Amino acid sequence: MTAAPDSGEATEFRADGTIMPVRRQWVPEVPVALEYNGLSYAVMMATPRDLADFARGFALTEGLARTHADITDIASARVEGGHVVRARLTGLGVEKLTERVRARVAESSCGLCGIENIEAVNAALPPVPPHARLDPRAVLCAAAALREHQPLGRTTGAAHAAAFCARDGTLREVREDVGRHNALDKLIGALAVAGVDLAAGFVLSSARCSYEIVEKAVRAGASALATVSLPTGMAVDRARAAGLSLFCLARDDSVLRVHDRSTR
Amino acid sequence: MTAAPDSGEATEFRADGTIMPVRRQWVPEVPVALEYNGLSYAVMMATPRDLADFARGFALTEGLARTHADITDIASARVEGGHVVRARLTGLGVEKLTERVRARVAESSCGLCGIENIEAVNAALPPVPPHARLDPRAVLCAAAALREHQPLGRTTGAAHAAAFCARDGTLREVREDVGRHNALDKLIGALAVAGVDLAAGFVLSSARCSYEIVEKAVRAGASALATVSLPTGMAVDRARAAGLSLFCLARDDSVLRVHDRSTR
Repeated sequence: MTAAPDSGEATEFRADGTIMPVRRQWVPEVPVALEYNGLSYAVMMATPRDLADFARGFALTEGLARTHADITDIASARVEGGHVVRARLTGLGVEKLTERVRARVAESSCGLCGIENIEAVNAALPPVPPHARLDPRAVLCAAAALREHQPLGRTTGAAHAAAFCARDGTLREVREDVGRHNALDKLIGALAVAGVDLAAGFVLSSARCSYEIVEKAVRAGASALATVSLPTGMAVDRARAAGLSLFCLARDDSVLRVHDRSTR
Repeated sequence: MTAAPDSGEATEFRADGTIMPVRRQWVPEVPVALEYNGLSYAVMMATPRDLADFARGFALTEGLARTHADITDIASARVEGGHVVRARLTGLGVEKLTERVRARVAESSCGLCGIENIEAVNAALPPVPPHARLDPRAVLCAAAALREHQPLGRTTGAAHAAAFCARDGTLREVREDVGRHNALDKLIGALAVAGVDLAAGFVLSSARCSYEIVEKAVRAGASALATVSLPTGMAVDRARAAGLSLFCLARDDSVLRVHDRSTR
């Protein structure tokens, strides 16, 4: 089998009657298998770039690693039909890795969408420590800047981005992926290696604010999360329960402070 | 544990300096467990409405059922922390159901994102029969109409929709969900019960056009798919391989014909 094309011809039809041939870039979407300590843990549909960041961030947000130092010897390889990323895990996460793989076998859990059972969805999050109040103008600034820092998004029209921003709204780091969860995991992996304290700024995601985005941000140590669309009920509930400050754009020029856990 | 809130207070900050308290509806997002013949098959994060359509459509697009008549005795119930939908499967899909559950146990496949292994992603699709050419103006019309027929999307700003449209662009049926795949599965389930031939019109999705949207449309018998954002490389590849006509909106007033398998 051949790899899916990165670009192709199409015909554009405009409402005003214009018809023209166009050549477009398509966002790459390939199966990426993540293996830790030789155990196949997950296959995700992802954009095959920044795969070391991805393997790190995924292990951190899944609770397989406490720090990036627990994840070493990351190597990725093209295989028939996709990519494999292999990494070595050390530390307390190893037991968790083995337990989970064993649990999956024993329970024949479906896990079709990342959830093994209803109880797993409702597991408690670590509490977010009190933190300074975020200026909503910084969120609007950062969201406007992010639109200018998504090269993959701009050329393909179909990629998500996650960014880490200073408290004044300056973008510090951006990662892109066809999947919104993957973009966030890549960002978290990159920040971990760089030794960035996520609580010192805020995380900005181009994604819809579903509960998993909240959970990943909290597990990575963020104190504030901003998303470019409105949240689900469960995302609001999770942010409140954990004490995560949550801002969601209602429009390009309007942001909602959905939850604010600031104390100073 | 209490259910996540369906609405809540927030503070809106506008770029022009306006600050005001607002009350917003949040889109419901809860774990929904799908059980067929007593076997727990999947837990999806979904909006708990149209759950019978969901159970039907999911079984059809997963290949567990050939027709809606194979899926009977659908009952959904609230449980602690979510919903369970139970259904009875008959016909050829039963063997597939049992095989898959057994395979998951035996292989300890991760299935974290619905994929058991890289090979499974690249499985062949049934071919789409030749069909009449779709007028791109019908796609633009339908996309504009869909924006007016998403009550959940309008009140929450965070729901996806899938619609079935006549070839002139008239909306025939719409389903909404927090998840784009779920909205499509609900639509497919509803159309199956109503005895609608999907090849007689086209499917319109508010989702990004990833490969799974293409696959679900093909498995449900669609001949043409339109999405409101651009496709991934794998989605283009899959649509071409199966012979699905694919249209993707580049902007509100512009649609790309990405692939056209029409013959008359």
